[in-house]
Amino acid sequence: MSVLGPLFRWEAVESHFSDRARLQAMLDVEAALVRAQARAGLVPAPAAAAVAGQCSVDGFDLDALGRAAALAGNVAVPLVAQLRARVAREDAGAARYVHRGATSQDVIDTALVLQLRGALVPIRTELDDLAAVLARLARQHRATPMAGRTWMQQAAPTTFGLEVAGWLDAVDRHRERLSAAHRRVSVLQFGGAVGNLAALGEPAMTVAAALADELGLALPAVPWHTHRDRLAELATTIGLCLGTLAKIARDIALHAQTEVAELSEPVAPGRGTSSTMPQKRNPVGSAVVLAAAARVPGLVASVLGAMVQEQQRALGGWPAEWELLPETVSLFGGALHRLTRTVAGLHVDAAAMRRNLEASRGLVFAEAVQHALQDRLGDQARQVVEAACHRARQEDRHLRDVLVADPAVSAAAAPDELARLFDPMLHLGAADALVESVLAAHARHPAAAAAGGD
Amino acid sequence: MSVLGPLFRWEAVESHFSDRARLQAMLDVEAALVRAQARAGLVPAPAAAAVAGQCSVDGFDLDALGRAAALAGNVAVPLVAQLRARVAREDAGAARYVHRGATSQDVIDTALVLQLRGALVPIRTELDDLAAVLARLARQHRATPMAGRTWMQQAAPTTFGLEVAGWLDAVDRHRERLSAAHRRVSVLQFGGAVGNLAALGEPAMTVAAALADELGLALPAVPWHTHRDRLAELATTIGLCLGTLAKIARDIALHAQTEVAELSEPVAPGRGTSSTMPQKRNPVGSAVVLAAAARVPGLVASVLGAMVQEQQRALGGWPAEWELLPETVSLFGGALHRLTRTVAGLHVDAAAMRRNLEASRGLVFAEAVQHALQDRLGDQARQVVEAACHRARQEDRHLRDVLVADPAVSAAAAPDELARLFDPMLHLGAADALVESVLAAHARHPAAAAAGGD
Amino acid sequence: MSVLGPLFRWEAVESHFSDRARLQAMLDVEAALVRAQARAGLVPAPAAAAVAGQCSVDGFDLDALGRAAALAGNVAVPLVAQLRARVAREDAGAARYVHRGATSQDVIDTALVLQLRGALVPIRTELDDLAAVLARLARQHRATPMAGRTWMQQAAPTTFGLEVAGWLDAVDRHRERLSAAHRRVSVLQFGGAVGNLAALGEPAMTVAAALADELGLALPAVPWHTHRDRLAELATTIGLCLGTLAKIARDIALHAQTEVAELSEPVAPGRGTSSTMPQKRNPVGSAVVLAAAARVPGLVASVLGAMVQEQQRALGGWPAEWELLPETVSLFGGALHRLTRTVAGLHVDAAAMRRNLEASRGLVFAEAVQHALQDRLGDQARQVVEAACHRARQEDRHLRDVLVADPAVSAAAAPDELARLFDPMLHLGAADALVESVLAAHARHPAAAAAGGD
Amino acid sequence: MSVLGPLFRWEAVESHFSDRARLQAMLDVEAALVRAQARAGLVPAPAAAAVAGQCSVDGFDLDALGRAAALAGNVAVPLVAQLRARVAREDAGAARYVHRGATSQDVIDTALVLQLRGALVPIRTELDDLAAVLARLARQHRATPMAGRTWMQQAAPTTFGLEVAGWLDAVDRHRERLSAAHRRVSVLQFGGAVGNLAALGEPAMTVAAALADELGLALPAVPWHTHRDRLAELATTIGLCLGTLAKIARDIALHAQTEVAELSEPVAPGRGTSSTMPQKRNPVGSAVVLAAAARVPGLVASVLGAMVQEQQRALGGWPAEWELLPETVSLFGGALHRLTRTVAGLHVDAAAMRRNLEASRGLVFAEAVQHALQDRLGDQARQVVEAACHRARQEDRHLRDVLVADPAVSAAAAPDELARLFDPMLHLGAADALVESVLAAHARHPAAAAAGGD
Repeated sequence: MSVLGPLFRWEAVESHFSDRARLQAMLDVEAALVRAQARAGLVPAPAAAAVAGQCSVDGFDLDALGRAAALAGNVAVPLVAQLRARVAREDAGAARYVHRGATSQDVIDTALVLQLRGALVPIRTELDDLAAVLARLARQHRATPMAGRTWMQQAAPTTFGLEVAGWLDAVDRHRERLSAAHRRVSVLQFGGAVGNLAALGEPAMTVAAALADELGLALPAVPWHTHRDRLAELATTIGLCLGTLAKIARDIALHAQTEVAELSEPVAPGRGTSSTMPQKRNPVGSAVVLAAAARVPGLVASVLGAMVQEQQRALGGWPAEWELLPETVSLFGGALHRLTRTVAGLHVDAAAMRRNLEASRGLVFAEAVQHALQDRLGDQARQVVEAACHRARQEDRHLRDVLVADPAVSAAAAPDELARLFDPMLHLGAADALVESVLAAHARHPAAAAAGGD
Repeated sequence: MSVLGPLFRWEAVESHFSDRARLQAMLDVEAALVRAQARAGLVPAPAAAAVAGQCSVDGFDLDALGRAAALAGNVAVPLVAQLRARVAREDAGAARYVHRGATSQDVIDTALVLQLRGALVPIRTELDDLAAVLARLARQHRATPMAGRTWMQQAAPTTFGLEVAGWLDAVDRHRERLSAAHRRVSVLQFGGAVGNLAALGEPAMTVAAALADELGLALPAVPWHTHRDRLAELATTIGLCLGTLAKIARDIALHAQTEVAELSEPVAPGRGTSSTMPQKRNPVGSAVVLAAAARVPGLVASVLGAMVQEQQRALGGWPAEWELLPETVSLFGGALHRLTRTVAGLHVDAAAMRRNLEASRGLVFAEAVQHALQDRLGDQARQVVEAACHRARQEDRHLRDVLVADPAVSAAAAPDELARLFDPMLHLGAADALVESVLAAHARHPAAAAAGGD
Repeated sequence: MSVLGPLFRWEAVESHFSDRARLQAMLDVEAALVRAQARAGLVPAPAAAAVAGQCSVDGFDLDALGRAAALAGNVAVPLVAQLRARVAREDAGAARYVHRGATSQDVIDTALVLQLRGALVPIRTELDDLAAVLARLARQHRATPMAGRTWMQQAAPTTFGLEVAGWLDAVDRHRERLSAAHRRVSVLQFGGAVGNLAALGEPAMTVAAALADELGLALPAVPWHTHRDRLAELATTIGLCLGTLAKIARDIALHAQTEVAELSEPVAPGRGTSSTMPQKRNPVGSAVVLAAAARVPGLVASVLGAMVQEQQRALGGWPAEWELLPETVSLFGGALHRLTRTVAGLHVDAAAMRRNLEASRGLVFAEAVQHALQDRLGDQARQVVEAACHRARQEDRHLRDVLVADPAVSAAAAPDELARLFDPMLHLGAADALVESVLAAHARHPAAAAAGGD
Repeated sequence: MSVLGPLFRWEAVESHFSDRARLQAMLDVEAALVRAQARAGLVPAPAAAAVAGQCSVDGFDLDALGRAAALAGNVAVPLVAQLRARVAREDAGAARYVHRGATSQDVIDTALVLQLRGALVPIRTELDDLAAVLARLARQHRATPMAGRTWMQQAAPTTFGLEVAGWLDAVDRHRERLSAAHRRVSVLQFGGAVGNLAALGEPAMTVAAALADELGLALPAVPWHTHRDRLAELATTIGLCLGTLAKIARDIALHAQTEVAELSEPVAPGRGTSSTMPQKRNPVGSAVVLAAAARVPGLVASVLGAMVQEQQRALGGWPAEWELLPETVSLFGGALHRLTRTVAGLHVDAAAMRRNLEASRGLVFAEAVQHALQDRLGDQARQVVEAACHRARQEDRHLRDVLVADPAVSAAAAPDELARLFDPMLHLGAADALVESVLAAHARHPAAAAAGGD
């Protein structure tokens, strides 16, 4: 990882996307391929063992591979050549069985699938963790009143628990989506030069099935060299997930503003410090997530655009994916890990939430007050409350005081009755029931039952 | 529709996205809302009928709505005001029941859901049709040999049926995805000002359930005012679909090039003509699909970016969706309809496909020849064939003739044996079995069983 | 415009992008073409007059054009056919001079250039207005202290005038960019079928020059049918502008939050109201700008992607532009007009800005205090102030009080000296000079000198 | 660089974007800052020398920086801390002058500017080289006839030289744009915590000017911490350039198709080979350019979206740029270098171009023939030629033969006259003049005069 790596990425994911990991995955495919052909009787077992025995990235010359890949147009061509040479040194007869029947793209695509499959394991566990943390937080604050805000203005009272329940509900949907995308992307690519496995002759379909079995991947109906929808679907699913993570991060950052001060990110030595301002505690976790979210939609669009791949195997769309897909997963992994740690250590200031309900001097209760007065004043209530809001703002008074001073209102409701209308606890509506509904659905979530498996 | 509408769009979809359709859907939500409250005993049945009776877009002043929406920030505010005034003229007492307990976003979001649900019906039928047409084409050409092309170069022989089977296989996956997205997006939005249904008091959850029932929508665990993943998922699913449609369109355009001439788009008077060149027959269908595919990834990225919506109801991300989502569906609808019609009338020139297999003067058979010679020449075969390819290119001769003249080769294989290696029918590998495998999967497709339903 | 038009768009721009405006621009090109050929002696003057006389959109059948365009693949083919027929009815011999030497794309591209050129006139005037309004505001508030905020946290004191000067400085850069893009995009497209003007014979270059002259457009060195950089540059320039507009809008929305309340958007009846909350004054102007900014980067990416146009005239990339470019300009026009009006009527609450400087209980002065103490405490100052910040936060005390109570500090500075450190007016640094520097550059701005021309 | 680096990137550019280059640029800024303050008399010269003396990346612990940056939220915080510690070890009194008056973003932004400025030097030279190569090619093939192709169909004859002149003309425009963007982006960032340089007191503006001078950067009117248009403009300019590079690459790939075979990419051992097909020569250069073009528009959209940066210094938009901008320049550099080398070694097969003019059996001459016949047949010519084209296609005959057999035509033109109409050299229109016009403009290009300077 680069010096910015620890900031933006997560080691558990990155380890699947290093150069070594990429090449090892390709060698794993080559090893599986020769074993599958041995199972089909096409390759003598000792030769298969000789090939598989060389399929460790350790002895390969990565610099030479890079230079040769620049000429050949992909890294499989020189990797296969190096592998063949290494095998030949040990067992000249076995070299001919290297990469037999496959094309570069079979190896590169299947290796990418293996890398993605691996990277999604920690990601899905972390997303489960995030959901668990959110469930705890929602339960804890199901009765914590807070100003609900719309159009970035205080609107009406609600609870912090309901806000968090909304976050949780979305995260739980993403857990399902990611599970489905994980399953769908775990599919073998194997078609040979133009996708008809012509180089393998009769036993082609048997070899394909054995290869899928060796690698624990699904066997597709047909090779998908220029049909990238499964890969692209993983990217779009990540785009959807990250949209939600960034929504949560933006909410946290808004709650954490100095004048609002309802939430703060966890404190640790060196965390969120400034190079010049000694008081600073920057919401670093939110910033990392928002930065990722600023980047991933563009990557998703590129992946979708690159789907327009020509004929049997494409020209520019395919190489475009080689860095795009790992990058997409990597930024997501980093953001997810950051957000999970941030939410887990989030400091909630319920007193500040309560205090901010007073910031509008009663205006945040206007809708509730209007509803309450409608029973007594009928359709006139709306106009009365609108006028009172206007006056409260103009004269910088509390809405309650303006209403008490209004003869029409005071004729209909006693001052203490009016005062009670400004108690947030009386205007939370179905907030508690909705939190309950989300928590119940969360408890029933498939991933809750299964222990990490699909 | 604009003057470009018939070119880029499809009436069956557009009818769901006109101004009138948008407003009518909003009025349908208002009518359902008051009926739901009547079912819950909150509104007298005659008042509910009075409100519902005004919920037809016909009498509304659209210009005034547009101007007032520009001030208010959304079209629901003035629509509700107009509706209330219209109801009041008929039944003064009923006006107070208009829009009760709802917020603008409840109406706008649910109306959008209704529009999307409607537009997806013809789209899914058309996608079924496209699949059916492709299945027919794949079956028909399962034994039509063709040059497989990789990196936009002839690579090795394959069949046109296998190419089409690849198209079909992807389309069938999209049918599943679109079915799932259709189901997931068909969900009620109903939360009131800040998502806790506070204005409705105790019976809020009952009203919500009744409202979902009235509209035939699913009732979510919690309102989703700032959680847009279901809507965004529809956009990403369309992005995935369109990637495949455009891949097919690009393939058609490549096959249709003058020098290739293997496919041509259907001929009709005025279709694909030029303003200046009398001979022109432009592949208009492919162009429309590719133009849509150039635009939709950007729209998807915008939808994903707009997911970062603040707090209880958002500032800029939400209004961004109002045109983005209809536009995405609309461009997809137009492209899908065009492609389906184009593929249905596609002219396949199997003779040209066969002829083009000769364009490379035997080089397209190089891999097959090398495999065949490997049995006789062993590992030397690769070098021999590579050298022969090089010489064939240099001297502009047929690869077969170069090989015949090569003593090493002629020692190992008789000229007629060599000549037979250049028969494409002998190098189609598993093409037929793979087509069969796709067709079998297609026949088992869920949508094939169900008659248009989920 | 649709019912959402008045919200998102601006009539002064939209009038250039209606169907009628598009077709009239195309007819203007046809008229200029025949006049140019008359000037070159290729067409008899009366015939040219007969053709030009029919080049008014009024008599054309737009529905028929739309249907025929769907078949032909572009609207020029049927438009030319209708025009030819109309001319023939008046003057049979003149009909042959219609569209002579041109191709559809010449007419469609040049017409688009004319539309863009027209739409940029009100846009540039409005951008000048925005700059003027910002200059006034920056001057007015050059000494209005305010909490500077970084990472969405209060950081150190600054002035509102400096914030606005930053907005202005960027807007002035965009005025230059837009002027350059306006000039560069105002270029003739004229190349005939494949860009070599072959159909016109010898006088081709003369006709091209005359045509450019007729339309007041620059004559390019060579036709640019598949080189779209000038058009794309207009889109990217708009993307840059909108980034700044949206930055301003987001700042306004953040300042306008209930708990911050430093700015509010202009008040007008019906503006920013809610369908349910009587007190609401939503920042509608900011929302419209932010919504546009959520959409335009995706459009810009699509325009850039569509630049990959094939050969002499392209397949899908070109039609993709027909709606993309007008849409980009249209969303920008709407956002610009909104923001200009919003900023012109912005209410600035300097007292609230001052009050919010107290929100952090002195922490916003920490850097300034540390600098002041450095002279007396040396390098120790940093640690002392950091510790005091920590304690102030922990014990919820004012930083000043904590420092006064610190023996090391009180030994070095008297309480009233310390108290003076918390006066924002003493920590504004070069704010005033920087505002001056921006205003001076603004006064020198080329567009300030020229009255609307380049 | 990763193992894919040599394929997608260019060392001359990459060297500016390594971790070490990034940190060294930051240290260069710190050194210049302390020197500027020494010039302003704020720092004793020996102390300045002591600080500057430590500003070499060699002794820094990059792993520790990465880990600390992950906590702090940016790499400047720990870098400054390490620098301060290193200075203190040598000269305790000098440590206090490290990073004085600056904020993290001043250092990070200015360092990025330095990196970008450096990377643009080889890029601009390479773009000059590309233009020179294209000019040579255009001149060489100004009279090489070729089928002009529109909508991916043969349309009418033109010259390869004119196609190349179109490429050149666009590249020359990009040279101007890149020169302007290079100049505009080379600007100092220096504002302190909130952009008003408050920590430096009176001499702030003097220090800023001296710092700009030290680094050879322009001094802006005001710091631009949250105004990113200059950086974003570099990204959009690159997006525009790459659009043209990819258009050229796509054209090359289309010309290089087996059935067209008019161009081929340079041949070199190992270049464009396949892992399985011995005859393959894949157009690797074009593929690399097209892959970059599939990725950059999404990056540009992300950069534009990230412009919406909050208040005095932003939360997520700023960190998003740290990898986005280098990535954009890097992909462009790789693509540009590849394309320049590819075009420089391009093999043009003029005979194949000529041969392909016969592929349509005369139809490519239809427009020319119609024009020629118009003088003799009048308005009837269009119908006659259209009918002949239709028949030629139906009956698979040469258009010439169909016309000769048509009594109306043969009455008007003798067979040998008709035959001459099918000579491409007679239908090249203004192709040569247009090539000349582009070459003349190229010769006048500013960058042609100046030797590498602006």
